[in-house]
Amino acid sequence: MKIDGTSYRGVWVDPDDGWTVRIIDQTKLPWSLDILRLTNLREAAHAIRSMQVRGAPLIGAVAAFGLALALRKDSGAEALEQAAETLNATRPTAVNLRWALARMLTRLRPTRAADRVATAYREAQAIADEDVAQNAAIGRHGLGLIQHAAKPGRAVNILTHCNAGWLATVDWGTALAPIYSAHDAGIAVHVWVDETRPRNQGAALTAYELGKHGVKHTVIADNAGGHLMQHGQVDLCIVGADRVTRAGDAANKIGTYLKALAAQDNSVPFYVAVPGSTIDWSIRDGLRDIPIEERSATEVTTVTGRAMDGSIATIRVAPSDSPAAYPAFDVTPARLLSGLITERGICPATESGLLSLFPEQA
Amino acid sequence: MKIDGTSYRGVWVDPDDGWTVRIIDQTKLPWSLDILRLTNLREAAHAIRSMQVRGAPLIGAVAAFGLALALRKDSGAEALEQAAETLNATRPTAVNLRWALARMLTRLRPTRAADRVATAYREAQAIADEDVAQNAAIGRHGLGLIQHAAKPGRAVNILTHCNAGWLATVDWGTALAPIYSAHDAGIAVHVWVDETRPRNQGAALTAYELGKHGVKHTVIADNAGGHLMQHGQVDLCIVGADRVTRAGDAANKIGTYLKALAAQDNSVPFYVAVPGSTIDWSIRDGLRDIPIEERSATEVTTVTGRAMDGSIATIRVAPSDSPAAYPAFDVTPARLLSGLITERGICPATESGLLSLFPEQA
Repeated sequence: MKIDGTSYRGVWVDPDDGWTVRIIDQTKLPWSLDILRLTNLREAAHAIRSMQVRGAPLIGAVAAFGLALALRKDSGAEALEQAAETLNATRPTAVNLRWALARMLTRLRPTRAADRVATAYREAQAIADEDVAQNAAIGRHGLGLIQHAAKPGRAVNILTHCNAGWLATVDWGTALAPIYSAHDAGIAVHVWVDETRPRNQGAALTAYELGKHGVKHTVIADNAGGHLMQHGQVDLCIVGADRVTRAGDAANKIGTYLKALAAQDNSVPFYVAVPGSTIDWSIRDGLRDIPIEERSATEVTTVTGRAMDGSIATIRVAPSDSPAAYPAFDVTPARLLSGLITERGICPATESGLLSLFPEQA
Repeated sequence: MKIDGTSYRGVWVDPDDGWTVRIIDQTKLPWSLDILRLTNLREAAHAIRSMQVRGAPLIGAVAAFGLALALRKDSGAEALEQAAETLNATRPTAVNLRWALARMLTRLRPTRAADRVATAYREAQAIADEDVAQNAAIGRHGLGLIQHAAKPGRAVNILTHCNAGWLATVDWGTALAPIYSAHDAGIAVHVWVDETRPRNQGAALTAYELGKHGVKHTVIADNAGGHLMQHGQVDLCIVGADRVTRAGDAANKIGTYLKALAAQDNSVPFYVAVPGSTIDWSIRDGLRDIPIEERSATEVTTVTGRAMDGSIATIRVAPSDSPAAYPAFDVTPARLLSGLITERGICPATESGLLSLFPEQA
């Protein structure tokens, strides 16, 4: 997608040197577009852990490239396993990280050490390119839902939580792909952007990328969505996910569950958009079996933004002696979902629904 | 209640001069305890509109004292009506404002102009003193709910939204009164404090007053409550309200409805604590008939807090060209409430339940 007319992806190999990995430092958005250069395993792991890159599909792709960077230093079998473990440990909830690393290991373990670097770059690039194609397909499938919700003379109001746009993926996004598809097809859309405290991925990233693409949107506090649904101001909710179980339970950024409850209470369709790589076929019960990352209390008690003098400042918003907690994800039970939007089509959020699209997982 | 050993109320008449009205500037908490001096109608109206004082019971009491201040300048019948109108227009949702002004007018209209100032101060003080007594009674009634939820060897986990503590009232608070009563009675309690974006009344005020009283608490993003309830970490929810209809629908700070949905989904009791003055006996359907204040978009796109150098700073958290919206309240339908805690006891959130406690409203 484009920023001020220039096309970007969430991660790419520098075309000039052919090996360094480039990412946008998402902790600096929307204030400054800083392109970072990752040159080794440590930097790649740090980028994921510190949320310079975030979003389930994107951290999978960055981890794959991180493995390629690690192999440049040591392409031995032991180094390969250790690098994969290091990357795997950066964040616990998104399954794409594990999926991408498992795919890389399957490809790299039988490869000769001398060929591993080149193979790793090829496979990581394939993961990235497939992510783009899958998200474009999610966009095409989801477009039908938006067309269905469209009424003459008014925009389709879509609520989203966190950032599941192109910044959360290699390109297009998951939840936002149908929105971009609709916008590009000339359908009037308006997006209610949950700010998504505590890290503000909605206000900082979703509002930014929608604005750069010219999609109408309004930033709201995470508290507001239920009220808007009660008053008929939301036609459709679409969110992404970090892990979906084979039964359709969806872990996504904390607060998603509350919006799904409100959608159900007001008969607003609520969809989760994910590529197949976000589905964890090994588990059914999301509440029991998806590990929920606990992040630092500081991420709740402080907020970063732009001060009136233009500088980027971090301020404290709670008394200095008050403890805080930040469970980073919650699990929305499948029963609250209208369906899942995948690259293979839309299905009910049930095991049989998912298996109808992914029969190879039966 | 006490701050660092000194007793305060949410509003009081200066004992030294006998007429200026003193309030704590709540927009400066928790960083600085600034006592403001209100000397005329304009200052009183500004204090309510700008949320230097907020909380339904407190703005009722401050409006009553504001009328007394207005009458000092002109105690004529026309000035009385105009002053009441000015104060009435400061905020639309809380019914206590209208209730307090109606009570003052009922008392002051038949009073001779020469006696109106003294009568106004007496009546405003009566409103304030009754609020304290009513909240203490709410605390006693709510204490039973907390005792009931107590289990040996662990604290009772109570979730609250926004600030319905002593800072929202003249003293004690509504939702926090039972918590203070339990704490003072030696029951171990722990409060999950929703930060309550966009104005952060939870993080700034509830965490502050609980901390000053020594009550254990943890600040969380507004997104986190559903997840905590899914995992058995919330025993009870208690919130205040700005207006309750005679059928039991409750308007409270935006986001309350989402927590009530999560409480229902997880069988967690959800109570609304209000004095009788918060009940609007003239309406039944809260969603249709309670006006919801729309506040400035700037309150969503900016956050105020303490910068690392100790200064108070306001930072922007959304792109400068992204619009924002701030509906300040939502309505929780009575069907989601376990009950109402009033100064006369606890009742079901139904018309018959309320009338069993307030038969004079039948």
